[in-house]
Amino acid sequence: MRLALEWARKGLYTTSPNPRIGCVIVAAGKVIGAGVTQPAGQNHAEVQALADAAARGNDVRGATAYVTLEPCNHHGRTPPCSDALVRAGLGRVVAAMTDPNPLVAGQGLAKLQGAGIEVASGVLADEARELNIGFFSRMERGKPWVRMKCAASLDGMTALHNGRSQWITGQAARDDGHAWRARACAILTGIGTVKTDDPQLNVRAVATPRQPLRIVVDSRLEISLDARVLQGGDTWIVAAVANPAKEAQLRALGAEVILLPNAQGKVDLPALMLELGRRQINELHVEAGSKLNGSLIREGCVDELLLYLAPALIGDAQGMFGLPALADLDHQYRLRFHDITKTGDDLRILARFNHLTPTY
Amino acid sequence: MRLALEWARKGLYTTSPNPRIGCVIVAAGKVIGAGVTQPAGQNHAEVQALADAAARGNDVRGATAYVTLEPCNHHGRTPPCSDALVRAGLGRVVAAMTDPNPLVAGQGLAKLQGAGIEVASGVLADEARELNIGFFSRMERGKPWVRMKCAASLDGMTALHNGRSQWITGQAARDDGHAWRARACAILTGIGTVKTDDPQLNVRAVATPRQPLRIVVDSRLEISLDARVLQGGDTWIVAAVANPAKEAQLRALGAEVILLPNAQGKVDLPALMLELGRRQINELHVEAGSKLNGSLIREGCVDELLLYLAPALIGDAQGMFGLPALADLDHQYRLRFHDITKTGDDLRILARFNHLTPTY
Repeated sequence: MRLALEWARKGLYTTSPNPRIGCVIVAAGKVIGAGVTQPAGQNHAEVQALADAAARGNDVRGATAYVTLEPCNHHGRTPPCSDALVRAGLGRVVAAMTDPNPLVAGQGLAKLQGAGIEVASGVLADEARELNIGFFSRMERGKPWVRMKCAASLDGMTALHNGRSQWITGQAARDDGHAWRARACAILTGIGTVKTDDPQLNVRAVATPRQPLRIVVDSRLEISLDARVLQGGDTWIVAAVANPAKEAQLRALGAEVILLPNAQGKVDLPALMLELGRRQINELHVEAGSKLNGSLIREGCVDELLLYLAPALIGDAQGMFGLPALADLDHQYRLRFHDITKTGDDLRILARFNHLTPTY
Repeated sequence: MRLALEWARKGLYTTSPNPRIGCVIVAAGKVIGAGVTQPAGQNHAEVQALADAAARGNDVRGATAYVTLEPCNHHGRTPPCSDALVRAGLGRVVAAMTDPNPLVAGQGLAKLQGAGIEVASGVLADEARELNIGFFSRMERGKPWVRMKCAASLDGMTALHNGRSQWITGQAARDDGHAWRARACAILTGIGTVKTDDPQLNVRAVATPRQPLRIVVDSRLEISLDARVLQGGDTWIVAAVANPAKEAQLRALGAEVILLPNAQGKVDLPALMLELGRRQINELHVEAGSKLNGSLIREGCVDELLLYLAPALIGDAQGMFGLPALADLDHQYRLRFHDITKTGDDLRILARFNHLTPTY
């Protein structure tokens, strides 16, 4: 199963909106076939592993397949993997965990068992779940896993008051940030960051065949038509105030405009998260300024902080999150540290909000 | 030598102003005696280890002594350890490192060698040095190793604007903070913290036979005679403006007043560090408010940050260090991460300032 998880990780940047799944087929203690989910519409991991075994001239009859998620049993863009495993004559199928997708939910393993294949599940389930946390979030909560990235000094500052932020963290942290961008279905920012930094918001520091979608929260459609985030299309602009002329100009550039106003005439952020779930966004990567960061946190839209802390002190400057003063410490936002790693000279912290249900 | 370092650590709270030294005597592959430096004026580690061997009826003639610092060769409050080792007939002495104390500086090993004892040094020297970083700082730079402790939220806040700071970090972090207090020769704070929090500034969460000195930076001698930090004596008040009447009142309470004004009529902090070095302070533990913290950092008086970060966001509140806005990021204070540890639910970060010479 550990090897199957390694195969699953090969799909980190490519399988969405499908989960990253790995499959390893073993006979007489030897790996005779392995595979990973291909981009959407193409083979799932099980079919890849069977094809790999066949290409290597290996007989899979009676063999054991280790797969990092219960094989699917429904006709999506591809036929059910359970049928392929039955047809191939596998003797045993071990799944890391059952599928939370209501269209599958135990039926895949049941189908296999009904066909006389020995089945088991619950092996390295935590790791398997973690690898597809965005997929599971969408299946179970109808919205993406939202990871907010910030880079700051040890005293929590992201930039000087004059906007200067280069360089606080180092190259290794910036590259690592691109790897997290690459695994996300979409990168979200705010109009403030677009105006100030004019980011491309794409993946450059790591190789990926797939660029994430780009999403800009821009209540009043203030974005410049020259903004770099609009180049190459695949950009969604989320607004609160309709502006048919500007919307048409943006569409002409290949962008899509989504109107989601709340009662205050701002973008309804919780509604946006549900809309992104409907649009099959598994992991949402947020790189925004302190204002939008603060709004997303206050409105309970953030699941995880991805924080790069540089060993530096900057003093009076711009903070990470525009959060108002509390009257009482009982109202502080509590998280828990999920992972702490040195990244070059900097520290990378993954912390998860405690408002999440225990499974997250 | 690793065992000798373990013995040295037994003296973490007790040996100052002497360094924490361990000594293990080995014969035929067996430990036949061991010891640690006793409180000032009493036995050094080598004499303790010889006495331990004697008490256990072991013959040390020809044996090897492992000691975490070169044995002393001068008459201080105790006679030279080198003489005791020669007299006992040791065959070999291995030191983790030579002594930076100009009164010793290689003479201890030379004396042993002259007496026909085989000597070696430079074994686990980095660990031996780290354990006594304050002692070496005082010997080499004439001032203490200054460790500044802060507890903050992930967004770098120590307290609400109304002063409330309970509870951001958890019990484990608070207890760990007391262990760092216990190993320091003195704990320093500012008059602002004394007025706001009225701290006792002593060690409570860990058992120690010795309480550190307490030092309050109080330029205009504003401290209340009822302040808890004055209870029990052993408190130094550092002022910039003389006030004979108040000074007399403080002395009557057992406190000592040190006048160290700079040209601006504030306490001359760099001069204070040198004065503390003269007064045999090895490790100085700072727990102050953002204003004094900022002044100490700006004036280059801080060697190390001991930072407890809670997995929490607080928003607009009091920051850790009162440092003014920078015009340019080139002027940021750069540090390097020395140690990162989870402490209960919190994160403990030790980071050292890059302005230090490479040995620190």
